[in-house]
Amino acid sequence: MIQKLLIANRGEIAVRIIRACREMGIESVAVYSEADQESLHTQLADEAVCIGPSVSSESYLNMESIISAAMVTGADAIHPGFGFLSENAKFAQLCEQCGITFVGPNSSVIQCLGNKQEARNTMTRAGVPVIPGTDESVLDVETGLKEAERIGYPVIIKAALGGGGKGMRVAYSENEFTKAFQTAQKEAKMAFADETMYIEHFVEHPRHIEFQILADSKGNVIHLGERDCSIQRNHQKMIEESPSAAVSEELRKKMGEAAVKAAKAAHYENAGTIEFLLEKNEKFYFMEMNTRIQVEHPVTECVTGLDLIKEQIKIASGEPLSITQKDVKIQGHAIECRINAENPMKHFRPSPGQITELHLPGGQGIRVDTDIYSGYHISPYYDSMLAKLIVCGKTREDAIAKMQSALGEVIIEGIDTNVDYQFEILQNPDYQAGNFDIEFLNTHVIAGVNINEI
Amino acid sequence: MIQKLLIANRGEIAVRIIRACREMGIESVAVYSEADQESLHTQLADEAVCIGPSVSSESYLNMESIISAAMVTGADAIHPGFGFLSENAKFAQLCEQCGITFVGPNSSVIQCLGNKQEARNTMTRAGVPVIPGTDESVLDVETGLKEAERIGYPVIIKAALGGGGKGMRVAYSENEFTKAFQTAQKEAKMAFADETMYIEHFVEHPRHIEFQILADSKGNVIHLGERDCSIQRNHQKMIEESPSAAVSEELRKKMGEAAVKAAKAAHYENAGTIEFLLEKNEKFYFMEMNTRIQVEHPVTECVTGLDLIKEQIKIASGEPLSITQKDVKIQGHAIECRINAENPMKHFRPSPGQITELHLPGGQGIRVDTDIYSGYHISPYYDSMLAKLIVCGKTREDAIAKMQSALGEVIIEGIDTNVDYQFEILQNPDYQAGNFDIEFLNTHVIAGVNINEI
Repeated sequence: MIQKLLIANRGEIAVRIIRACREMGIESVAVYSEADQESLHTQLADEAVCIGPSVSSESYLNMESIISAAMVTGADAIHPGFGFLSENAKFAQLCEQCGITFVGPNSSVIQCLGNKQEARNTMTRAGVPVIPGTDESVLDVETGLKEAERIGYPVIIKAALGGGGKGMRVAYSENEFTKAFQTAQKEAKMAFADETMYIEHFVEHPRHIEFQILADSKGNVIHLGERDCSIQRNHQKMIEESPSAAVSEELRKKMGEAAVKAAKAAHYENAGTIEFLLEKNEKFYFMEMNTRIQVEHPVTECVTGLDLIKEQIKIASGEPLSITQKDVKIQGHAIECRINAENPMKHFRPSPGQITELHLPGGQGIRVDTDIYSGYHISPYYDSMLAKLIVCGKTREDAIAKMQSALGEVIIEGIDTNVDYQFEILQNPDYQAGNFDIEFLNTHVIAGVNINEI
Repeated sequence: MIQKLLIANRGEIAVRIIRACREMGIESVAVYSEADQESLHTQLADEAVCIGPSVSSESYLNMESIISAAMVTGADAIHPGFGFLSENAKFAQLCEQCGITFVGPNSSVIQCLGNKQEARNTMTRAGVPVIPGTDESVLDVETGLKEAERIGYPVIIKAALGGGGKGMRVAYSENEFTKAFQTAQKEAKMAFADETMYIEHFVEHPRHIEFQILADSKGNVIHLGERDCSIQRNHQKMIEESPSAAVSEELRKKMGEAAVKAAKAAHYENAGTIEFLLEKNEKFYFMEMNTRIQVEHPVTECVTGLDLIKEQIKIASGEPLSITQKDVKIQGHAIECRINAENPMKHFRPSPGQITELHLPGGQGIRVDTDIYSGYHISPYYDSMLAKLIVCGKTREDAIAKMQSALGEVIIEGIDTNVDYQFEILQNPDYQAGNFDIEFLNTHVIAGVNINEI
């Protein structure tokens, strides 16, 4: 078993991991930048090592400093948290070379899954559904029509060299195809001096549904149900929940099996997440696999009763999974809101500064994962997430009521936050009805804010 | 359904009830004394009414002020919390007379169960085990011997007018009885000028095991398993847990059935608790029934997934129980530590004052029920409980590790607390082994403190 764990991260996730260590009797080593001397993770760990200046590239992204800190303190393992070096294959490899256990999959797996084309090929070979598309370049309408027929409408026609929406058209039927293709190709030629086109099935208003998996070194892989992370702004998740209002028991079984198949195909080990796009017709497509713990892991913890950080540490220590798929029971409904230091009224501008007054909710079914305290200075150097507010209710309706009450109770003074904005999402009838997709924030005006106008 | 609820209490339980109201869409009315103007419950409720000076007898115990506050604000119900007026039959009756729903059993039930002899008689008639004892006065050794034989050794011989341990002797066998009786009777005569004796079975080193029950107005009664509250100082509970390490599945069924029988015999309605003494040989005896929510209710919430305050409100609104006995599943293990403003090193002297720094733990499986915040003044007028720290783990071992980590994280500056003392209890090998009874704190020196010397 791991004896001493260095946490190569900061903020609430560092605190979260330190707490797991304390409960498991594992010594913890924090690393911190000059800006983080007063941070909770620095204070809470058994030991703390300064690894460089405030700017991340010189501290939390500085592999050599972090490896040195592990060597100096005698840490036998490193947990990378999320962000920073957590999906950096080179860092995982460096740990392997130095004889330090990296709490995550091995570097070659990270490498493979980090390459979108390679990941797609792996999944296709394993029979995991990926978004159907052309395998070769398309240069004329006739070939395009045949390919579109094969792929299935609606399709999106893209310039192979495209970007920024240029040379891109959607066709909902054969009738629309010819004109759409010609227009897109003309645009492509003008913009990129290239007529090579790519056709892909157009996934309309999908939900972002991801499956948590656990895989041990003995080849056992299980999934822990899904998280619905469709409430996003610019691909940044804001609210996550488990289970999803759009996933039936039958669909959960089907997607879960695909997720397990995906992890097995990648020879995955440790905790990981398979992200899918889910269409209204219940067709789903592999998007990518995240090879680390996710911000939103607590919603899965709430509905399964598991501690995912402890599971990660046990897997990295070589232990087999203590549970099988049939032991996994999804109970209740959990929602997480990310509380950020940002002002939605001012284009979500980050709002660093000192917290002068603080009251966070508590009580039955309420969990707060945070590293802030009254008097704490929010640094401008790092991301703006202040806290994760997680509620667990018996039903989705129950959880929504709980989250509304909890958000209404939050007092954070001295800086701006998105608490009121989150509260307004929770009040929205479409959100409450479970009737939403990844376009939700683009198609609804929340708290007077239309994010399309930003 | 109740529309507007007045909470006739203060502190964390008032906050707890207000949160339940918010989640249920019920308007909340706080009442507060002059000392509690800045208290969290005063700030958090939809409305707040000052009901008098700081001293409880003129505010939180002032029935007329509280009833007036309900009238003025149009509250249709009153939740009494625990302590204060929660088991006052007259107050419940006053509510009934004023057409205000009292969230609890009706006044005659409170009256009956509040009278120890009457409660004992009710339980005896219902076949619930009570501590065997003499029904009539005993004046001579011969009668005493016969009674002791019937009751079963060990027995305790008490002066009928006794108190303070005077005229009290324990006899473990017939051989010891005569001498013990004579000595006790002599002492009784000297101390109280009365030779009337009472003999009761002596429950040796029992555990305090209580069963939570829920009873609706339709006559449905269920139990939610037990809480082990054996860690007490001067009959004040300090640590509570569920389930008990001393209660097997079979015993739980037996005691649970007795608890349900007890509640039915008392025509009980709403949430209530049957307190038992449990002997090592698994014999158990009814002690008393508490006709209110208990401080330690969250441990039951953790292992059952229910919200007991909401259940209380639903029952008081006339709703039938939504679950049956077979729906009740005890999962995991929960422990609660009461964090008090008191100094164990100074005879547990209360420690009012201002909280200057505050950090409370959070994260997976951690619940904090409290009304304190950084800068809050702990008033000398009320009891010293600052917070309830509740953890929920998969196993008892897991929960203990979690509680140790959580207690280790607490920072409360400006006042003295019992956090370190609680931490030391959790470290004790007997506690960890589940090997303890209500004498635990009398028979163990904790953190250098021998409570027998206080």
